[in-house]
Formats: sequence, structure tokens, C-alpha cells
Amino acid sequence: MDLIVVMKGTSLLGEVDAVVARVNELGLKPYISRGEFRTIVGAIGERTVQIQQQLEQLPGVDEVMVISQPYKLASREFHEADTVFDVKGVRIGGGHVNIIAGPCAIESSDVLFSVGEAVKRAGASILRGGAYKPRTSPYSFQGLGREGLELLKEAGDVLNMPTITEVVDPRDVPVVCEFADILQIGARNMQNYNLLLEVGKTGKPVFIKRGIAASINELLMSAEYVLSQGNHRVILCERGIRTFADEVRFTLDVSAIPVIQERSHLPVFIDPSHAAGKRDLVPSLALAGIAAGAQGAIVEVHSCPDRALCDGPQAVLPNNFVKLMQQIKEVAAIVGHRVTNGDPAQTAFDYSVFPA
Amino acid sequence: MDLIVVMKGTSLLGEVDAVVARVNELGLKPYISRGEFRTIVGAIGERTVQIQQQLEQLPGVDEVMVISQPYKLASREFHEADTVFDVKGVRIGGGHVNIIAGPCAIESSDVLFSVGEAVKRAGASILRGGAYKPRTSPYSFQGLGREGLELLKEAGDVLNMPTITEVVDPRDVPVVCEFADILQIGARNMQNYNLLLEVGKTGKPVFIKRGIAASINELLMSAEYVLSQGNHRVILCERGIRTFADEVRFTLDVSAIPVIQERSHLPVFIDPSHAAGKRDLVPSLALAGIAAGAQGAIVEVHSCPDRALCDGPQAVLPNNFVKLMQQIKEVAAIVGHRVTNGDPAQTAFDYSVFPA
Amino acid sequence: MDLIVVMKGTSLLGEVDAVVARVNELGLKPYISRGEFRTIVGAIGERTVQIQQQLEQLPGVDEVMVISQPYKLASREFHEADTVFDVKGVRIGGGHVNIIAGPCAIESSDVLFSVGEAVKRAGASILRGGAYKPRTSPYSFQGLGREGLELLKEAGDVLNMPTITEVVDPRDVPVVCEFADILQIGARNMQNYNLLLEVGKTGKPVFIKRGIAASINELLMSAEYVLSQGNHRVILCERGIRTFADEVRFTLDVSAIPVIQERSHLPVFIDPSHAAGKRDLVPSLALAGIAAGAQGAIVEVHSCPDRALCDGPQAVLPNNFVKLMQQIKEVAAIVGHRVTNGDPAQTAFDYSVFPA
Amino acid sequence: MDLIVVMKGTSLLGEVDAVVARVNELGLKPYISRGEFRTIVGAIGERTVQIQQQLEQLPGVDEVMVISQPYKLASREFHEADTVFDVKGVRIGGGHVNIIAGPCAIESSDVLFSVGEAVKRAGASILRGGAYKPRTSPYSFQGLGREGLELLKEAGDVLNMPTITEVVDPRDVPVVCEFADILQIGARNMQNYNLLLEVGKTGKPVFIKRGIAASINELLMSAEYVLSQGNHRVILCERGIRTFADEVRFTLDVSAIPVIQERSHLPVFIDPSHAAGKRDLVPSLALAGIAAGAQGAIVEVHSCPDRALCDGPQAVLPNNFVKLMQQIKEVAAIVGHRVTNGDPAQTAFDYSVFPA
Repeated sequence: MDLIVVMKGTSLLGEVDAVVARVNELGLKPYISRGEFRTIVGAIGERTVQIQQQLEQLPGVDEVMVISQPYKLASREFHEADTVFDVKGVRIGGGHVNIIAGPCAIESSDVLFSVGEAVKRAGASILRGGAYKPRTSPYSFQGLGREGLELLKEAGDVLNMPTITEVVDPRDVPVVCEFADILQIGARNMQNYNLLLEVGKTGKPVFIKRGIAASINELLMSAEYVLSQGNHRVILCERGIRTFADEVRFTLDVSAIPVIQERSHLPVFIDPSHAAGKRDLVPSLALAGIAAGAQGAIVEVHSCPDRALCDGPQAVLPNNFVKLMQQIKEVAAIVGHRVTNGDPAQTAFDYSVFPA
Repeated sequence: MDLIVVMKGTSLLGEVDAVVARVNELGLKPYISRGEFRTIVGAIGERTVQIQQQLEQLPGVDEVMVISQPYKLASREFHEADTVFDVKGVRIGGGHVNIIAGPCAIESSDVLFSVGEAVKRAGASILRGGAYKPRTSPYSFQGLGREGLELLKEAGDVLNMPTITEVVDPRDVPVVCEFADILQIGARNMQNYNLLLEVGKTGKPVFIKRGIAASINELLMSAEYVLSQGNHRVILCERGIRTFADEVRFTLDVSAIPVIQERSHLPVFIDPSHAAGKRDLVPSLALAGIAAGAQGAIVEVHSCPDRALCDGPQAVLPNNFVKLMQQIKEVAAIVGHRVTNGDPAQTAFDYSVFPA
Repeated sequence: MDLIVVMKGTSLLGEVDAVVARVNELGLKPYISRGEFRTIVGAIGERTVQIQQQLEQLPGVDEVMVISQPYKLASREFHEADTVFDVKGVRIGGGHVNIIAGPCAIESSDVLFSVGEAVKRAGASILRGGAYKPRTSPYSFQGLGREGLELLKEAGDVLNMPTITEVVDPRDVPVVCEFADILQIGARNMQNYNLLLEVGKTGKPVFIKRGIAASINELLMSAEYVLSQGNHRVILCERGIRTFADEVRFTLDVSAIPVIQERSHLPVFIDPSHAAGKRDLVPSLALAGIAAGAQGAIVEVHSCPDRALCDGPQAVLPNNFVKLMQQIKEVAAIVGHRVTNGDPAQTAFDYSVFPA
Repeated sequence: MDLIVVMKGTSLLGEVDAVVARVNELGLKPYISRGEFRTIVGAIGERTVQIQQQLEQLPGVDEVMVISQPYKLASREFHEADTVFDVKGVRIGGGHVNIIAGPCAIESSDVLFSVGEAVKRAGASILRGGAYKPRTSPYSFQGLGREGLELLKEAGDVLNMPTITEVVDPRDVPVVCEFADILQIGARNMQNYNLLLEVGKTGKPVFIKRGIAASINELLMSAEYVLSQGNHRVILCERGIRTFADEVRFTLDVSAIPVIQERSHLPVFIDPSHAAGKRDLVPSLALAGIAAGAQGAIVEVHSCPDRALCDGPQAVLPNNFVKLMQQIKEVAAIVGHRVTNGDPAQTAFDYSVFPA
């Protein structure tokens, strides 16, 4: 049963009959339960918002309550075990914790390679860098575009790390797929449904950030758009919500982590950098997220943040990132997780290939 | 002067010098003001978020305060008088109040024409109808697409009303331009910057809804994306924000109306339908918005809302819309505005052209 | 029926029996309805949060849904017609609109009398003034206390206006009752239940402001505390909620007005001054509230606001208040309300009694 | 310097002079800094909200910016080192982490003693239990009052644990002081200033919960009320804020922990129970808070939560609390903290004294 139509205490018999008739007409199976004071009509079948909205307006109806969730493929009911998948040899999801790190925007080969090397040494397993930056102002730096993608691919190849970058326009999906391993959907585009369908069709892993005012169910519905295209490699990311609390840039909602994990089988990451907005707070938020059970974090690191072209104040310095990685590993172990180590010692990394 | 860098009480002379040097390096003109306890460095010139973020991180800096606003073309400082423009003979902005009405989604010729006729008779001046519907669920009705656009154009032509419809994908901009008079950017796409650039390039009037968690400045920055393409015909729309208050679908922020009007010259509309989420509340919110000075409203009207394919519960019935239009006219007059009357009596409307 | 216990699809027969047994034990009357996939247990009787919480935890229970509202005396179901009552000859509630005006804090006899006279002339029917001011900082002006109350009573007597003032401490209730006609409970004390019980016992009219993060139901429950003491003269006041939108002090939630009026018979006022935080926005918000159906407004007016000891920036100047009162009268008429006129011309006011 | 008055670009010389004169009149020391486009007037001295509000309204003034914080005694500038104090031998603050545990409400001797024993065995160092319960509904269980306090004291004495309980009315402060070791101010009373003054005067440690919509500065100002009475033993507690995210009862704002610690020297605890609203989420939130650096947590534990008279769904079972305590100890160590162990093995606890 998917819907419960609660009739008003004052509803008439004919009104109940009309509801039952409409439930039938809508292709659901009704069943009636008459109580002492109220009648309830259950409706079994394909529930949609549209059906709920139509039933709510019938005479004599007090409320229409929803029981089953609107998402299917994203739901634990559909797929009970944690989703675990592989990106270029890196296992994601389940008990695996992966740390994605790198600069906010790709600005130059130098910064990208030096930061990339540093975060890999510290243990990060995936390299991030933005080539298409959605910026509030049309007058801000908008990213290097295709040139940035080329640099990112080069760095990923040299460092032997899978890469992730944001895509903001359905027309850019092919070029981003050509160069990056994971496609990031930013918070501003969480409900850009045509973009979700396009990335869904590519079969590449998709990393979806929660919108700053999105409910958990809305996030799972956005995942559903990707999953509905036959692409099951989806990662969700809590990155802070907008609340009255303006001491930080966004309020990191750590409770989203266990709530999502209860409802869905998809891996959940956190983004402490955008939530904090300044680097001093990043370690506390990162550790909080890992302690709450997150299966990864995406952290902005910059070697010279006071010259960064984007979001410098929230970038962690490489040295501090080393300490943070160590703490993350220890906290993850306490909650039964294990951090994937991207350490060069394990991957025969040849430092001589780096640009001087 | 655009920025004020407040040094810490404990900052050193060398630190002040370093800030001044960096301000120069960034192409701004510094000037220093030494107080008893603190030094302040002002910086005159092109302020960007990036510059602010870089200065914040220098040693000895306590805070970087912003004085001028980040938007330019959208600002009242740039354009003091209200923007007033014309769409197919309908004047928008300034003291003109326009009511946009019609069904949420275009479902059929019958509903569109009968609702269109009813709202025009009642005094609405612009016809709305959705052909591309952004839906939370991939399994919900997504709109009729091009077929819907054709119906909308036909109805607009027959009724002699300008039309408005939503565009959600940069790739759809040409086809929507072919059929509609005003392009609507929905709340979910307020920060879909590539889409904003595309609609900006068309030269068609653009109607931008505020995102459910967007600040006024972010809304004005989105307008700036359109204006920066040389398109000055922009309408802003407050449609409710997401707060803890879940008694309604969204909290209509009526204070946004005078705040926007103080900062910007652009016309401000309200959307009482999406804020309310149910029709009984729509008249109260519509009148509140007009009383607060809104230069228009967009109202969903449906002749048979309990069979609507989208958002039926919030659609006003045609009869109730007649009364609401009358009240809107009276309230607008009290605050010095005048409602543009789309009444057929003034436009020699021939009802015989309607489909039976 | 007050509760619906929805069992999980996988629940066992014995679990249903246990729920039924517990419903009986809790003094409610259960009835069972077995669907194809789920069983539902309805429970008729005195619902409490406690009972709901206990049932939620039983094995096999998926969700406990609440149907009836938690408040009784405040509910329209209990008292269908609008509550209308009288304070010193002023009718409050129903179709009557009353404007309460005066300075934020009582600072001196001069300001109080000159502002009082001005607002009365303009048409305000009730005089406000704070003697006990709840201030965020212990170092701010905290009000004149009893001396302020004496001034307020004197002004009310001379001007022949009922008076309202805030009470913040159960121990102050007797002295405030001695001098004021209406007791105000501020937003910070909306859930100070012992204070609500004390003011409930006095039988004086009570004006309860909604807390900045209170739901409508929580506000009605606070009213219930007063009503439960046999005091039915309660006014509710929407004064703005705290949201992410920081362009104004608080977001005035105009939708609260029709929502409360649907659920409750009690009169609803608005406070545009505290919501706006600055005087330029006060008229827009005041008119929005009256247009949305509010039965009154409480407006801060000051003759010399840049020397006010509290909240000067949001105080309207007497001249502007005259215009606002005129607009309020006109807007109220459009929504079928009538403003009670406190104008001296009707009350044989003798201006010679004022302090020079 | 405490304030910066930024004059408008168009301000006149006379307007600047008027601002300077008023700054002098208000007892602050002005100094002027004339820039190319704007003049700035700094004001050194005792800043108050009142002064800021008055200056904002002067002609030619664009904005008044605040530099120093409004709190003094609660500030790290006033007291650089962490506050550490002692309650009956238990060290609180600094690197010490203390877990407060026990039932939400004191219901009976049996439950209180059995839960108390269990939490002490598991390592909790302070015993909680509510005797005066602020309840949304006047018809809910309101606590046992004095009888509850007596039971709490008895349990604390037998178990050799300091006790904490909530006080909601200034008139109850003496009796609560007689029986309890730490006075709790609940979220609803965070801005009940007279209550804060009363508990401040007692000299007993005060535990202040953040209001559900309070900013960090407002929380620190409430602490300032207590500190201003000469009482320096104050603990602050983040317990979740009200946001749009309704998947949990309140959104635990973990970023509040490092933000408060940066601004203030007072210890910061978290309350995962009220934030979560259901027990399955409590461990994740508790560990997140400890990982973010909290110096303690207050956790509701109940041996038979489905019969609890208050908030049963969020009470952790004693067995799960044992595991949680172990994880808390390990996570605390990673961030350089040490959990105070209330284990009976260390305190020569005699279990035979318990009621059978």
C-alpha cells in the first residue's frame, strides 16, 4: 500500500465512494476501513505526487498520507546491501573510506601537480580540480575549461589517481567524460534534471552534491534520475545546508549521513571545505563526518591559498592535510571503516616525472 | 572605495606594509588610516570575491569588509529609475502591475484555452503554461515539450496575450524562443549560469525566480548574468523560501519586495501559488505581495484542478480568480500602482474562435 | 480516532497483537485494519506525545501518524466562531482591526506622551511601551521597570487608550497587572510555560508573540497554556521568523496569518517593526499583513528615533505613521475588515492635559 | 576602536561633523579618516547596540560596522586559556571530556537508580534527570518536581556522581540548588534573562543549552548574563538547531563547537539525543561531536524507553551506551582529549546500597 486517504470525521458516504472510484480510475487498488469516527481508504499501487495531489482535493478528504518512498532504485528496499564499486582500481562504498583532495579550481600545472603529489603522499586516493566553475558573479574567474581538463587528466595519469571534476552544462558532458574519471554534479545543479540524465547516460561514476536547501528525499530523487539511466555508480555528498547560522559558510548536516545510509545503499561522502568556508574549521568538520560514518570526504588543499583564484580561505595547507589524513584513518577505524591509502609507497610512484 | 581591510589590534607594521603591497599588486588603490588601536587599509577599485578572499588570509588581517555591492548593471546605483519595458504592448515595471495567470502545465488544448479565456476576462494580462516541467521525480509527468509550446503560442495569439513559459536546458532555448514571449528561469535553475547566459543572448524578456535558499544578492547576481549579455528586460520573482515553517510549501518572503526595489531598478513579481501550495492560501499571499509593492504576480489557475497533472492543489478556480483580480486592483491602487487590464472588453476579443 | 499506527510490511502477527494490547493498556480504543501488504492499527482516545512516542518504539511498527491536533481550547474545532472580546471598550478580533502603537521602550514622560498623542490622533487604538526589556546584552538598557509602568498607565488614562506592555518574569506579573491592560509575552518567552500559566491566571488579556523558530502548532500550544487557566482573551502575533535571509532582521511569515485563522479562533496580529528592523520597510510589511487578513498590528513609533534607547532604527516617525494608518484602513476594508479608530475626535480628547 | 561609521559617498561635510559630535556626546572618542570617495569615522570606547543603532540613523551615514564583540567575560580576549573547573571532584573543560547520562525525566526511583548504575559502570561521570520538564503541551507529564529532585540527590549520593537537572523558573532556583550540583538552562530558556541572573547569583555551575534558533553570539551573551554575576563555572551546549531539514528532530550544528572554542574559553558540550530524536542516530551524532572537539556530551539513556514518560524514542539502551562510551573514549584520544572515567571500579562503588 502506498497511500492512505484519511476522510474527515464529517465526510459523507458518497464522498467515500467517490474517493474509491477515483482510486480505481487512477489504476490503484483501493481498500476501505471504516472506523468509529473516520473512514480510511488505502490505495495500493504506483504512487505519484500527481495522484496524491489529485486525491487531496476530493470532497470529504482530510489528508493523504504517503507511506512508501518516492524513490525506488536508490532505496535500500530495492537494493539491501551497500553499493560498492570500482574506479580505476579504487574501491568506493561499503566499509571503504576514500579521501578526494586537490585544489578548488585548476589554475596552473604547477599548483595542480604539487598539490596532487602532496595529497597522494598523505594518503588521498582521488584527485579533484575544477575546470568549469559555477560562480555567483559573471565577473569572477570561471575556470580554465578544456585546458583545465587536460591538465587534470595529465596529473591523474602521472600520479596514478582517478580524477573528479564538475560538469555544469549538458553540452559539456562529452568533453568532461573524455578527460575525467568521475563526474561531479554541484549543489547548484542538484536539480538540473537534464544534466542528471546526460551524466546518467555516460555510465561514468557520478558524484552528486546535496543542494543547499535540498531534503534527503530530494537528493535521493536526483540520484534516481541517474540510476534510471542504468548507471548505478552514484556517490552522494553532504556539503552543508543554508540555515540562519552564519558563523560558517554552510551548516554541515552530519545527521544526513546516517539518515541517507538508512534509506539508501549508495555511498555518502562529506565536503567539509565548502561547509566551513575557512580552513581552521575543516579538520573538525572532516573528522565529525568520518566519525558519523561517512564513506569519504572531498577536501580542498592548496599550496598557496592566499593567491588562489577561488575559495582560497577554505583550502587546507598540505602540511595540515598530512595530520588530518592520519586522524581520519584512526577515526574511520573506530567506526569499522578502512581508509583506502593512495600513498605512493604502495603504487610505485615515480616523482621524477613531475614538472620541476 | 570598495573594501576595508581591518588589521588586528596586534598587527605589526610589516604586516600592514604587506597588505598595502598586495592591494597595489591586485590593481586597487590603497589608502591607510592609522587609528589609536587599529590600522585600516582601504582599497579602491574593482572588487571581486577573489580579491577579498586573498586579502583575508594575509598575516595580521582581522577582517575584510565589503562596502559596494557585487552587482553593477542590476543596481540602482547604475540605473536609478525603475526599469519599464514593453512586451507585445503590455507595459511591465514601474507603477504597472501585471498579473500572469494560467495552468501550471500545458496538458491539453481544452484546458489551456478555457483557463486562458477565463483569466483574460478577469483581467490577467499575460498567459502562463509549462511545456518543460522540472519534476523532483523522474517518474512524474515532464510536460508536453514542443507540442505544449505550440499550444501556448496558439492560445496567446487567439487571446491576444503575451505568453511566458519555463526553459530548463540551454539546448531548448531556440525552440522556446520560437514560440514564447517571455522566458522563465525556474527557482531550481536560478544559478544555472550557462542557461542564464543563453537566455541573456536571445534578447527576449527573462523572468527569473528566486531560488528557494538564495539571498537577494545572489538573485541580483543571476540577473547580472542576463544583463551582462546586453539584455535589459529582466523581471525578478519572489516565490517563497525554504524555512523550518512547514505549514505551507514555502515561506513567502514579502520583505524581499521592498529590499529588491531599494537595491535594484528591475521589476519584482511574486508567485503566491508555489509558496502557498494550496489554493485557499493563494489570495492572502497574493494580496500581501501586492500590498508590499510587487509589480505583478504569477498565479496558477485551473478549471479542473483535481485532475491536473501537476500542482493541482495550489491552482485557483476561475471563479475565485475573478474576485482576487478585483481585490488586487484595489490594493494596488492604495500603494500607488495600477493594474494592466487584459480584459477582452478592451481588446476586441472574439470568443467564437475558441475550440468548443 | 487520534493516531494511526502503520505496521511494517514485514511485521509479524504477534507484533500487531502487542501493539493492540498496548493501545488498550494506554486507555485508547484500538481497531485493526488488515491490508494486502500492511496492517494498520487505529487508536481512538486521548492522544499525547508520550503515547505516540511509546507506540513508535514497539517492534514491527513503521510509523505512527497523528491525525487530530494537540491543542484543544485554541482550536476552531472546539470554538468555531472567531473570538471577539473587549478591552476597555475596544473590540478585538473577528472583523475588527486594531493598531497598537507607541515607543519600543518607555524612556521618559515626554516621549511617551508626545508619541502617544500622535498615534492616537492618527487612529491607533491601543498604546504600547516597554518597561521590562529583554535585552541580548546584560550591558544594554533594561527598561525603567515600575517607573515605566506608572508612566504608561498615566499616558493610557490621559489618552483614554488601553495599554499593553511586556512581562518577562512570573514574579513581575502582579505589578504589571496593576498598571497595564494587556500583558505581552515576548518571542523569547513564548515557551516560558510558568510565565504563561501566571498570566493565564490573572484573567487579563494576553498578547503572545510567536517565537522566532516556533511552529504554528507550538504557538497554539502556548496559547493553550493560557486558555487552560480559564483565560480566553488571547491574541497571537506573528513577528518574523529566523531564516537564512538576513536582509531584514526577521522574515515576516505572512502565511502564518491565514494558517492560524484556519486552525484557531483567536485573533492574529502582526509586528512589522521587529521583522523589518528598519523603518523604511515597516509600511510594506504592515500593509502586507493587513492584506493577508491580520486583525491588527503592533507598530513602534518614536518622535526622535535617533536618540531612542532601544530599537530606534525600526521606529516609524509620527508623520509617516499618519499615512500608514490611512493605507491600513483602506486595505483592511478590501479584505472585509474594519479598523477601530482611536481618533481623539471621537473620544473628546483634551489636549491641554499634556505635559508641555 | 569599536565602531566604524562609513559615510555615504554623497555625504556632506556638515553631516560628518554631526556624526563626530554625536560620537563625542555618546562618550566615545572619534577619529576621522577621509578617503578619496568616502569618509570614515572611527569610534573608540564602550560600544553598545544602542549606540550603533543611533549612529546608523544620522544623515549621510551609509553603514555602521562593528569590530569588537559584544561579550566580554565570555570572550577569549578576556580570558585566553580554557576555563577548567571542578564539580565534586570531576574536572570539566580544557582537555577533559565528560559524559553526562541518565533518563530524560525522573519517573521513579527504580528507573533512575538502574539507569544511573548502568551509565556509571559504562563510564559516565555525571548523572542527569529532569524534575521540572518544560513541555510543549500543558497536558503532558510535567515532571515530579521536588520529589524528583530528592530522588536525583539520593541517586547522586549513592552513586557518587555529581548531578545535573533543569531549572525553568526563577522561583525554583533555591530548591534546585538544594538538591542538584549543576543547574541546566534549557534551550527554551536560553534568553530568559532573569532566570540567568538568578542562577548566576547562586555560584553553582550552570549548563546553558543553545536555543534552537540562537546565534553563537547570542549564546555567548546569555553566558555573559551568568558570568556578570561573578559565576565563572559555565558550560555551553550545542543541542541542534531548527532548519528546513526535518529528517531529524533538530540539525546538530557541529561547526558550533570549534567556532565557540575560537571565540570563548568556556567548555562546549553536545546533546546528540535531542538533535537526533531517535536512538539509532544518537551514536553517530555523539561521535561526530566528540571528533569535532566537544568537551562532553549529554546523553539520554533509559532501561525501558518504550514506557518512558518523555522522549523515549531518543533514549539509548544501556547496552548500546556501553559500546558508545568505548568509542567516545577512542575518538576523544585522537583529538587530544581524555574522557573522565566515572567507572565504579575507580570509586569503590557499593552496589548493595541499591534498591532491589
